[in-house]
Amino acid sequence: MAKLGFVGLGVMGSRMVNRLLNAGHTVTGYNRTRSKAQWLLDAGMHWGETPRAVAEVADVVFSMVTDTTALRAVIAGPDGLVAGLGPGKIYVDMSTVSPGESRELAARVAAKGAHMLDAPVSGSVSTLEQGKLSIMVGGDRTVFETIKPILEDIGPKVNHVGGNGQAVSMKIATNVSVAVQMLAFSEGVLLAEKSGIPRKTAVEVLLNSVIASPMLSYRGPFVLEMPGEAWFNAHMMQKDLLLALEMGRQLGVPLPATAVTNEVLTAARAMRLGDQDFAVVVEVLARLSGLNK
Amino acid sequence: MAKLGFVGLGVMGSRMVNRLLNAGHTVTGYNRTRSKAQWLLDAGMHWGETPRAVAEVADVVFSMVTDTTALRAVIAGPDGLVAGLGPGKIYVDMSTVSPGESRELAARVAAKGAHMLDAPVSGSVSTLEQGKLSIMVGGDRTVFETIKPILEDIGPKVNHVGGNGQAVSMKIATNVSVAVQMLAFSEGVLLAEKSGIPRKTAVEVLLNSVIASPMLSYRGPFVLEMPGEAWFNAHMMQKDLLLALEMGRQLGVPLPATAVTNEVLTAARAMRLGDQDFAVVVEVLARLSGLNK
Amino acid sequence: MAKLGFVGLGVMGSRMVNRLLNAGHTVTGYNRTRSKAQWLLDAGMHWGETPRAVAEVADVVFSMVTDTTALRAVIAGPDGLVAGLGPGKIYVDMSTVSPGESRELAARVAAKGAHMLDAPVSGSVSTLEQGKLSIMVGGDRTVFETIKPILEDIGPKVNHVGGNGQAVSMKIATNVSVAVQMLAFSEGVLLAEKSGIPRKTAVEVLLNSVIASPMLSYRGPFVLEMPGEAWFNAHMMQKDLLLALEMGRQLGVPLPATAVTNEVLTAARAMRLGDQDFAVVVEVLARLSGLNK
Amino acid sequence: MAKLGFVGLGVMGSRMVNRLLNAGHTVTGYNRTRSKAQWLLDAGMHWGETPRAVAEVADVVFSMVTDTTALRAVIAGPDGLVAGLGPGKIYVDMSTVSPGESRELAARVAAKGAHMLDAPVSGSVSTLEQGKLSIMVGGDRTVFETIKPILEDIGPKVNHVGGNGQAVSMKIATNVSVAVQMLAFSEGVLLAEKSGIPRKTAVEVLLNSVIASPMLSYRGPFVLEMPGEAWFNAHMMQKDLLLALEMGRQLGVPLPATAVTNEVLTAARAMRLGDQDFAVVVEVLARLSGLNK
Repeated sequence: MAKLGFVGLGVMGSRMVNRLLNAGHTVTGYNRTRSKAQWLLDAGMHWGETPRAVAEVADVVFSMVTDTTALRAVIAGPDGLVAGLGPGKIYVDMSTVSPGESRELAARVAAKGAHMLDAPVSGSVSTLEQGKLSIMVGGDRTVFETIKPILEDIGPKVNHVGGNGQAVSMKIATNVSVAVQMLAFSEGVLLAEKSGIPRKTAVEVLLNSVIASPMLSYRGPFVLEMPGEAWFNAHMMQKDLLLALEMGRQLGVPLPATAVTNEVLTAARAMRLGDQDFAVVVEVLARLSGLNK
Repeated sequence: MAKLGFVGLGVMGSRMVNRLLNAGHTVTGYNRTRSKAQWLLDAGMHWGETPRAVAEVADVVFSMVTDTTALRAVIAGPDGLVAGLGPGKIYVDMSTVSPGESRELAARVAAKGAHMLDAPVSGSVSTLEQGKLSIMVGGDRTVFETIKPILEDIGPKVNHVGGNGQAVSMKIATNVSVAVQMLAFSEGVLLAEKSGIPRKTAVEVLLNSVIASPMLSYRGPFVLEMPGEAWFNAHMMQKDLLLALEMGRQLGVPLPATAVTNEVLTAARAMRLGDQDFAVVVEVLARLSGLNK
Repeated sequence: MAKLGFVGLGVMGSRMVNRLLNAGHTVTGYNRTRSKAQWLLDAGMHWGETPRAVAEVADVVFSMVTDTTALRAVIAGPDGLVAGLGPGKIYVDMSTVSPGESRELAARVAAKGAHMLDAPVSGSVSTLEQGKLSIMVGGDRTVFETIKPILEDIGPKVNHVGGNGQAVSMKIATNVSVAVQMLAFSEGVLLAEKSGIPRKTAVEVLLNSVIASPMLSYRGPFVLEMPGEAWFNAHMMQKDLLLALEMGRQLGVPLPATAVTNEVLTAARAMRLGDQDFAVVVEVLARLSGLNK
Repeated sequence: MAKLGFVGLGVMGSRMVNRLLNAGHTVTGYNRTRSKAQWLLDAGMHWGETPRAVAEVADVVFSMVTDTTALRAVIAGPDGLVAGLGPGKIYVDMSTVSPGESRELAARVAAKGAHMLDAPVSGSVSTLEQGKLSIMVGGDRTVFETIKPILEDIGPKVNHVGGNGQAVSMKIATNVSVAVQMLAFSEGVLLAEKSGIPRKTAVEVLLNSVIASPMLSYRGPFVLEMPGEAWFNAHMMQKDLLLALEMGRQLGVPLPATAVTNEVLTAARAMRLGDQDFAVVVEVLARLSGLNK
């Protein structure tokens, strides 16, 4: 069995490592704050002192961080992940960064004789814990086939969608709908509520209708009660929409629904609701409707 | 078994009558153009010369027409449906009209000693033919319970959502998401396509993700090839969005995503694409992206 | 000198009559509430008991009311303005109503042998009092030339823009910019303010720049302090935008900036700011930016 | 009289230098392509081999380039402008870049013992040639007073608006209105045109109304005939809107009108109209309205 490395043990990364360990893999992990990884060390994960050290001991090394800045922090420099790569190694980045950035990184990895795949996920912590995560993969298909079984241990749904950077493109294209669907759902809920229909009834009816995507099925009820901890907060969602808007400008695709939704997320953040799950767009609309405070 | 009446035998209405006949009901029908109803007469439907005549012979009478103007045409006047109603009769309007209009009509029906329910459907011809239609019902719950089995013969999913007019409110609140989801999906598809991912692949990936609502599952593929005949064309969809926007203004609910989508539908119609399924918003976006002509 | 009639002596209408009296005209006026017209009666205006009575004694009769509903109330019925018209008389409606409605009314007037012009104004009470009002006129050019001197006594700027209904079309097209310019100005003011520039300085700089339309020159300072009484409140402005959006749909012109501004006005009204001057859009944006309450 | 330096002799910069020469100043200039500056050399301008060389011989040095990337190219490195600065010198950047970038640059300049001002202009080539340019200045007020007479030779309207970076903030806040006003104007023009009013008449009426800002007065007629050469093309305008949207996100100001206008500019560029004056938004709308091709 291949020796695995994993850099970035946050909310998503740590649970992925846990699934890999449960599947019988040997994993060496690295996180900026070691203490957060104690439960994984207790479960058998090895520790690497730097991203480079992790890459050096692994055949296949993963990274999962929050954004482009965080990615640069773990891959670059003498202690960075890329420095630990060499011929034949495979590097899988599961973060959501800009497709251009991902392609540039793939070129640097290739220059070391290694292979890179971009493998962002569709779904949140809850999807991951239920073992229902979907992984899109960009990069060389043969390389993909080599490590597909490992990705399925995280997944289980794994699909090759194209060349380097194209999986993150698809991820961003997906998240456009995730955000916009939540806003449209909120508009419908408030229309119903102000028509005299209890919000709870409105949510039930909407989630029994043709618009009930899996995303809305789990996140729609948040308009009744926001979760204690955000699954994906407004800051994070805006980060993804900005990647989409940036792509739209560069590629020449006007994105009217995305642009409008993005401004509602700006409002959410300005109203100090940015740490809440992005379903909080319903609260922005409610205030604009003269409800709540 | 109750004697049923049905006014409005268009694409949806005729198929509903067919299901009622198949379930063993006696149905008297009326349509402005009789010839279109021949196949139902052949299948055993009786003919009523006027909406009033249909209402007079039926215990429960249904109407299913395209908009407020068409509804007024069949209910009002000496030959109208309301004139044929009397104590104890039940009138079920399945059209999508404004909630206010529906409530006013319910009051006129009540003044005749009869009962009215608004019962718009969620789903299209294809959903209906597959026997998967969902019906939302507004009005008195006891009256609803009385005729629930009949509605289930059309349905099969039937839910009481509130008082008079509240089912059409929910229908409109649902269609907000139907239209906006299609626009957001199109934005994602074009982002992917201009990133170099074949449109077909993009659709597959998106429809395997958390955003795949039942509506998108059947309508999403239209961005690859528009159907020969529209399931619900851009004109019709804009009619529903206008009802939503009108509600939003009266009730005080800003609807940013709906408003933007509505303008894209205006563009579709101005570009002479209004007779196509409203999935044609993808074509509007494509032209704005410099694709197609 | 021609005998004049004037129906609708509100904020705008009464001041127009005052200017006509000052210019030496004989004016017979009507208003729903007579007491509000006392100052004009004191200044020499004659009183008509009904809109019809006013039309009967006048050669040229004007109306100036708030919307379509109010217009119908004064023109229709046995006591209505149209009933008092006859061959050779000229009727000038200065209200802002839908172009279609205006054209229909012109046809009814023509059927009585009289002539109608639509003559909406660009400007507010303050413009009117300063004698800087601009009047756009639709209808027959010869008829227009006949009464042009009278309109100039109200105006002074008077322009013939086209056939019946086309002046109200131009008025609505103008108000699109009035509303949208105010929103864009507010966006700029808040960007500056959150950059650390005092709002007062921002307003000064903006009003010294290329964007300073006459409208912004007098209304821009409202973002510093709203006027005690609205010059044109959010309800009224939304009424005009709805006319524009309705025209856009019927004629096939997508209006993205108008649609977005209209939703902000809906928010203003839902937040109980609808009675304030429509410059209150700045307050909606400020709350969305986490400022004020 | 102070010795002046000028880096960046493009469309705007070269005409500024010309005005300074005409006012009797000694100017040393630098441009990436020397040949474009020949007419200024003929008019008496001295040549500097590098931005650094220009800064070394000047007491007050100006820069005027198209964007952040171009600015970095002239200020940084051993041959860059900053390397030529020293105690007591004054550096005035007239480019439109992000306020944050401008402040960072001011700090670097201060570290050399020199002073920086940001001094973006409001107006275009035509405004400049007519001697009607307005200059906003950010930075230390005393430094500003020192060079105010020189700026007036370019201007003539010169205003101190705040600390470092705040003039570019105001410039960006102004350009929000410039872009949005043009879109709203276009919406009105097309509404009028589809109402049957000749576009020429519509433009005349609108430019005689309260919405006629100086910007619309000169750019509005472009909807009748686009200029042979863009005064400020769609690419450039989108660059400025992106700075605004970026500020909005960072500072927490939702910008609905700006966001929508920005997407129309994306469409213009995707439709290969990006090199035309940004008034070309009217053409995007016209195509969406089924007009033109």
